[in-house]
Amino acid sequence: VTVRTRTDDPLEALRAVVGAAHVLTQPDSIAPYLVEPRGVWRGAARAVVRPASTEEVAAVVRLCAAARISVVPYGGGTGLVGGQIADRGGAQVVLSLRRLNRLREIDVVSDTMTVEAGVTLAEAQAAADAHERLFPLSLASEGSCTIGGNLATNAGGVHVLSYGNARDLTRGVEVVLADGRVLGALGKLRKDNTGYDLKDLFVGSEGTLGVITAATLRLFPKPRARATAFVGLASPQRAVDLLGRTLAAFGQDLVAFELMPRIGVEFTARHIAGVRDPLASPHAWYALLDLASPRSNDCVEPLSLLLADAIDAGVAEDAAVAQSVAQAHAFWRLRETLPEAQKPEGVSIKHDVSVAVADVPRFIDDAAAAIERSFPGARPCPFGHLGDGNVHFNVSQPLGADPVWFRAQEERIHDLVHGVAIRLGGSISAEHGIGVMKRDLLPRVKDPVALETMRAIKRALDPDGVMNPNVLFARPAADRSSVP
Amino acid sequence: VTVRTRTDDPLEALRAVVGAAHVLTQPDSIAPYLVEPRGVWRGAARAVVRPASTEEVAAVVRLCAAARISVVPYGGGTGLVGGQIADRGGAQVVLSLRRLNRLREIDVVSDTMTVEAGVTLAEAQAAADAHERLFPLSLASEGSCTIGGNLATNAGGVHVLSYGNARDLTRGVEVVLADGRVLGALGKLRKDNTGYDLKDLFVGSEGTLGVITAATLRLFPKPRARATAFVGLASPQRAVDLLGRTLAAFGQDLVAFELMPRIGVEFTARHIAGVRDPLASPHAWYALLDLASPRSNDCVEPLSLLLADAIDAGVAEDAAVAQSVAQAHAFWRLRETLPEAQKPEGVSIKHDVSVAVADVPRFIDDAAAAIERSFPGARPCPFGHLGDGNVHFNVSQPLGADPVWFRAQEERIHDLVHGVAIRLGGSISAEHGIGVMKRDLLPRVKDPVALETMRAIKRALDPDGVMNPNVLFARPAADRSSVP
Repeated sequence: VTVRTRTDDPLEALRAVVGAAHVLTQPDSIAPYLVEPRGVWRGAARAVVRPASTEEVAAVVRLCAAARISVVPYGGGTGLVGGQIADRGGAQVVLSLRRLNRLREIDVVSDTMTVEAGVTLAEAQAAADAHERLFPLSLASEGSCTIGGNLATNAGGVHVLSYGNARDLTRGVEVVLADGRVLGALGKLRKDNTGYDLKDLFVGSEGTLGVITAATLRLFPKPRARATAFVGLASPQRAVDLLGRTLAAFGQDLVAFELMPRIGVEFTARHIAGVRDPLASPHAWYALLDLASPRSNDCVEPLSLLLADAIDAGVAEDAAVAQSVAQAHAFWRLRETLPEAQKPEGVSIKHDVSVAVADVPRFIDDAAAAIERSFPGARPCPFGHLGDGNVHFNVSQPLGADPVWFRAQEERIHDLVHGVAIRLGGSISAEHGIGVMKRDLLPRVKDPVALETMRAIKRALDPDGVMNPNVLFARPAADRSSVP
Repeated sequence: VTVRTRTDDPLEALRAVVGAAHVLTQPDSIAPYLVEPRGVWRGAARAVVRPASTEEVAAVVRLCAAARISVVPYGGGTGLVGGQIADRGGAQVVLSLRRLNRLREIDVVSDTMTVEAGVTLAEAQAAADAHERLFPLSLASEGSCTIGGNLATNAGGVHVLSYGNARDLTRGVEVVLADGRVLGALGKLRKDNTGYDLKDLFVGSEGTLGVITAATLRLFPKPRARATAFVGLASPQRAVDLLGRTLAAFGQDLVAFELMPRIGVEFTARHIAGVRDPLASPHAWYALLDLASPRSNDCVEPLSLLLADAIDAGVAEDAAVAQSVAQAHAFWRLRETLPEAQKPEGVSIKHDVSVAVADVPRFIDDAAAAIERSFPGARPCPFGHLGDGNVHFNVSQPLGADPVWFRAQEERIHDLVHGVAIRLGGSISAEHGIGVMKRDLLPRVKDPVALETMRAIKRALDPDGVMNPNVLFARPAADRSSVP
């Protein structure tokens, strides 16, 4: 798209590229793009621009770069760390990718699917399913989050254990760079050793190096047999033991292994209609696990046998294996509604930590002890993807405490929990990314040479700081007063 | 390691770091580091330096950078594209990593293993095996190639189909950068979204961005059941059909799916002692496939049933399922000795191409037709990792032709074969890398924006061109006369 315009007004030039109807400037029309799910950050932008093709994205970025207007790529807007939020006094354009919504190709022989950035995750899953294939990325926000956002943030979710994260599920990307050039690295190749792994550099770069406009994704055979179990356990260490037994027995057929504490089950049973504890007596901890196999044999019986052995060996205390799809959904509902069920319990300070699987029990113990020392009565509810060592160590306020006071303790609580994770060699962001939320924290926890290397790459690929300048990197101290 | 020396002689300073015994300068002692398996390239270097620790590597690189001596990292020396060969008139130091040979840690709960760069692949496999785990990377050169070299070249091999390549098998890396800083990105984390994916940038960068000194690798449960089959087929398309059936039935339990033409079986039966065709009658094409499952059930019977179905459906013509470990080894020997068996047939021009799996039949047909048009009687022997779309399209000289003449046709034959691959969106280097061999070819086949992006990253991380300057990037034309 070559733009010929007599005007020096960049908005006029943008209208010439995408059509006037797709350059939003009225406060009412851009407002939905300036908020995010948790309501923590609020943005400001000069315009929201909605191109419909890679060529239009390239032209928009070229124009913005020339006019020194920075660009904030925007997918489904479901990110949890503010990475989609434009700030800096509104001298920015929000670039919505939602109109790039074509399924370009599905190849069931090569097990790949090429989709544009604005396709939602649910649409991508459905396209694979319609061809008897599985696209295994699965997130709470899958109905509205987009593939472009999933890749920009290297989304995780409940099936990483077996299938990997968004990066692992991507074969190639098409990227509009910070100066508007289009980098063509799509393709269905499983093996391609012709230079640096650019694909994986753009995946997870949170829109700071370019705009992902399309991707070639991996597909898998659709499982024929499934089994879901809800298991009562004495401790996180017992859950790790059970994970080891299940992996040894089922390998990559173990597609999810989630951990929940008793308090989480209580929260959901108390606040979510229709949820009930599947086990007869209470247990201190629970595992929720899914097997899925493309092999036609039954998964329910072998899983039941494994769990019976685990109970005999004192590893597990009790277990229920779902006898129907409806029952499996009911087990999963307990896990999936947990974040929702924490809300009526007051303020919850959230974390997205990962450590080595072997270190999860120690992480949970040490973090809970640190919280109890400084905030007696605060209620840790550590749950998440044990199979990946990824714990959402969320802390609900003490019963009856002032929510405003507890919210004000957020930084101190983050420091306590992150401190334990860092001491164990863990990560302060396992799957949500850095965004705005953790950009000033990163320099305190990241290997300094790694951070310098990141900055060198950013300077090399986006020397003028056009692409999503709000996120990932800490701002100069003088600039921080304007952070919302 | 801080080096205090009164001398300006960089070799003296290097001796102070690693000890005089580990700075080799005598022609006899450095000669083994200047040759490679195929005898195509021959290097020249000022010295071979053999540090014993990450700190020593860092000190060596710092000294070399200060003295403007470039550094060529060297592992097992088994690379096939000359990436380990120092040239440029000997103004280089070969940096051998072989003394960094410690297994730093194995964690069977988190399924990770941290090893230093100089550990051989076979040693890494054995360490995993000793702990009842599998490290699945498997290559012909596994006895002598090293983990550092495997990662620097993103090695592939026969198990990529299920377990991935070296990149997929790596959780973290420790890297000495071009200025001697140490980047610490080791760690056992399955999920870590705290910035750019530096690990995957260094893996596969062929030593041009830094020296990988250690890595944390993924381990898998050890399979309990295995099955190996040798299948006769009418065409590559039938092999693709069989691959689809096998993936649908067994998913990630299908750990290898190799393709061979009849001429390959004839070569091995003719030239390799003890090899014989496992099937009663000849077939135009063959598949060799391996199932492996951590589930305790038998793999032999379900594979036999699947193959019987495939024969009934006209997909396969005949099949033998190994009834013993010895028989499975005999099947694999047919495949593994094929490169050796091509040697007595005269000159063979080799390729390492990948295309989408669906395009493999067309690639083989079109490439064979192109060869036959220009070189009547030349004998294509396309074999390799069909499950990854990776075909080693090797071409043996016509019977009775002059080997010197055929060797002289190498460039033209490369152009023909690569041309077909590129037209199908394929890669000219699926698993061997670019090295010296393909550095001048790369600009003709790679997306120009991708190549510019690679150069920008190289400039950002190694502005003085210290790290392995011979490989990956084409030289200025004026400089090419010195290419060996």
